Amino acid sequence: MVDFTYHNPTKIEFGKGKENIIGAEIANANITKVLLCYGSERIKTDGLYEKVTASLKAKGIAWVELSGIVSNPKLTKVNEGIALAKKEKVQAILAVGGGSVLDSAKTIAVGALHGNDVWDFFLGKATIEKALPIYAIMTLAATGSEMNGYAVVTNDAAAQKYHIYSEHIYPRLSILNPELTKSVPNDYLAYSAVDIIAHVIEGYFTAADQPHFQSRMVESIIQTVMETTEILLKNPEDYNARAEFTWVATQALNGSTTAGTNPTGFPNHMIEHSLSALFNIAHGAGLAIVIPAWMTWFHTQNPAQFKRFAEKIFGKNNAEEGIVELKKWFAEIGAPVSLKEVSISADSIKAIAENAAQSAIREGASELYTQKVIEAILHNA
Amino acid sequence: MVDFTYHNPTKIEFGKGKENIIGAEIANANITKVLLCYGSERIKTDGLYEKVTASLKAKGIAWVELSGIVSNPKLTKVNEGIALAKKEKVQAILAVGGGSVLDSAKTIAVGALHGNDVWDFFLGKATIEKALPIYAIMTLAATGSEMNGYAVVTNDAAAQKYHIYSEHIYPRLSILNPELTKSVPNDYLAYSAVDIIAHVIEGYFTAADQPHFQSRMVESIIQTVMETTEILLKNPEDYNARAEFTWVATQALNGSTTAGTNPTGFPNHMIEHSLSALFNIAHGAGLAIVIPAWMTWFHTQNPAQFKRFAEKIFGKNNAEEGIVELKKWFAEIGAPVSLKEVSISADSIKAIAENAAQSAIREGASELYTQKVIEAILHNA
Repeated sequence: MVDFTYHNPTKIEFGKGKENIIGAEIANANITKVLLCYGSERIKTDGLYEKVTASLKAKGIAWVELSGIVSNPKLTKVNEGIALAKKEKVQAILAVGGGSVLDSAKTIAVGALHGNDVWDFFLGKATIEKALPIYAIMTLAATGSEMNGYAVVTNDAAAQKYHIYSEHIYPRLSILNPELTKSVPNDYLAYSAVDIIAHVIEGYFTAADQPHFQSRMVESIIQTVMETTEILLKNPEDYNARAEFTWVATQALNGSTTAGTNPTGFPNHMIEHSLSALFNIAHGAGLAIVIPAWMTWFHTQNPAQFKRFAEKIFGKNNAEEGIVELKKWFAEIGAPVSLKEVSISADSIKAIAENAAQSAIREGASELYTQKVIEAILHNA
Repeated sequence: MVDFTYHNPTKIEFGKGKENIIGAEIANANITKVLLCYGSERIKTDGLYEKVTASLKAKGIAWVELSGIVSNPKLTKVNEGIALAKKEKVQAILAVGGGSVLDSAKTIAVGALHGNDVWDFFLGKATIEKALPIYAIMTLAATGSEMNGYAVVTNDAAAQKYHIYSEHIYPRLSILNPELTKSVPNDYLAYSAVDIIAHVIEGYFTAADQPHFQSRMVESIIQTVMETTEILLKNPEDYNARAEFTWVATQALNGSTTAGTNPTGFPNHMIEHSLSALFNIAHGAGLAIVIPAWMTWFHTQNPAQFKRFAEKIFGKNNAEEGIVELKKWFAEIGAPVSLKEVSISADSIKAIAENAAQSAIREGASELYTQKVIEAILHNA
């Protein structure tokens, strides 16, 4: 077990109707004006916008709005938010939505307090010194952004999907009401399941030092995701399944599964980010395509852990069968498992690999992940 | 899954030599004078005292000392610490030791900022409004106090072993260097293992609503404790086993296994606290006696979960066998499993049950845990 620091100061308020306390929580922090970020207008038709703004009003909190944040959130929209936050002198950012909205909010929270071009932080050219306080009300369980210091944004002009990490962008409070995720359609539920599994298997398979306890936690998360996804695809009204799904999504990327296991790689995310940067497909869908392809290429480098995975998750006794079963399960829940299924032809592999190889250089993973290797992985897909 | 709030702001610094950063960490918080709490003089002979004070000195941090804190820490010593903290106007409390030292430090941190008799907080007669910042360097992995808001103290005059809980007494920083626990003798290692298991099975068996994910986390912790205890009893030098043991001890009582499962009972601790309040036996030893006796009495009230426990932990297919196996394992690692083994005769059962029944009233558990029921449980032991 390697040395580590673990510090996750985010407060979670979990349960039915918790969105109604947002005004009180923000007021308790002596904040009187926020930037309210959201995506589509759906939150207006389903009543959430009304609840949130009523809660703010009740405590005398003023707000300005940034709407229209899309999946694979874009730098142009983030820059619009930064300008607005500065102009309006807001004291905090409130995200209402999924990971894309929250990641945009986090980036705005950074940009609002620095003079730099915010993309400099993504390129590693500048260091995040501070950020406005961030509050979140989640409507999708998947990215884990609600309890970590990561944000992923796409620089649309440069076709770069990169991330930042800082202790300053852990949300101060994240509200997780599983009922708010009920309107997520089945295909996006499946993509979310893939995303959660992706978050934990990256470390599970690539860690230089993987304690048994951490492996057990990862297996617990995967088992729970699979079990609850299957329930929810049949019965979206099952609250307990939805609540467990929501909570494991948070646990999957809050640092607890990787404490003591570092260094770990993040190759599937790295490759997928190029896929969704270039083709704008859903992140979880891209991961479902990349993961089995990557596993097929990588498993001989950590045979014991791949055998363990096959045994614990699928009751199979060899690594290859574990990979086959996972791919089969992805397909069963409705996620694509080949590039062909999302209409990306073999001709595009070179461009994707070229883009991902740039990320690999940025992430310090270029020794293992050359363009050639990434091409070979993608040909498995 | 029931609604919950999860907020654990404690920072963990985990690994070899981390005790040397304590001065820098305290200085970063602009603290210039601390109360240094510890137990025996052992930390002076093994070099830890020297390292810690050198680290404080290097950053110009002054300190006063409270030493001689014992297991089942006493209110008289805590009151001595409170008086000293007030007189010397310290700005923080630094605990160097195990759970008893840290729990005393937490209570001193509360008492130093209030006018009340500190025992009022334990009796529920007063509310904790604030506390001095608490820093910890752990030399024993067992109680989980390093990452939670609990403290247990014994009022020696009244023979009451009670607890407090407050958001204000989460340590600001806990340093966990597994190597500092190397001198713990085998019997105390065994008691610690029992204590960790006790922390997670209370909720596992008593929760009104136990999500599968939480059960899986508990099972992961128990499996890891058992595996690493067996390794360490044979080879105390195994760093990885010691590190995993240390980390699961923290995970076992930091709120993560019970989030969403409440309300849970804490009956084994409640009964054991009376045992150790009256007979001053080691807490983990008392738990090893109480747990199988309680399980034998309770298992028919939650048969599915007891069957699950037998299956997942011991590969057995009925509840009774699970209890037998756990008791056998406690005995194998060197923990007592009957009152007789710690020289407590059946004549004393009435007095222990009387004391525990008072705790049950205080904990709001007296409907289920009458004196009569507690006597019946103890007769199983």
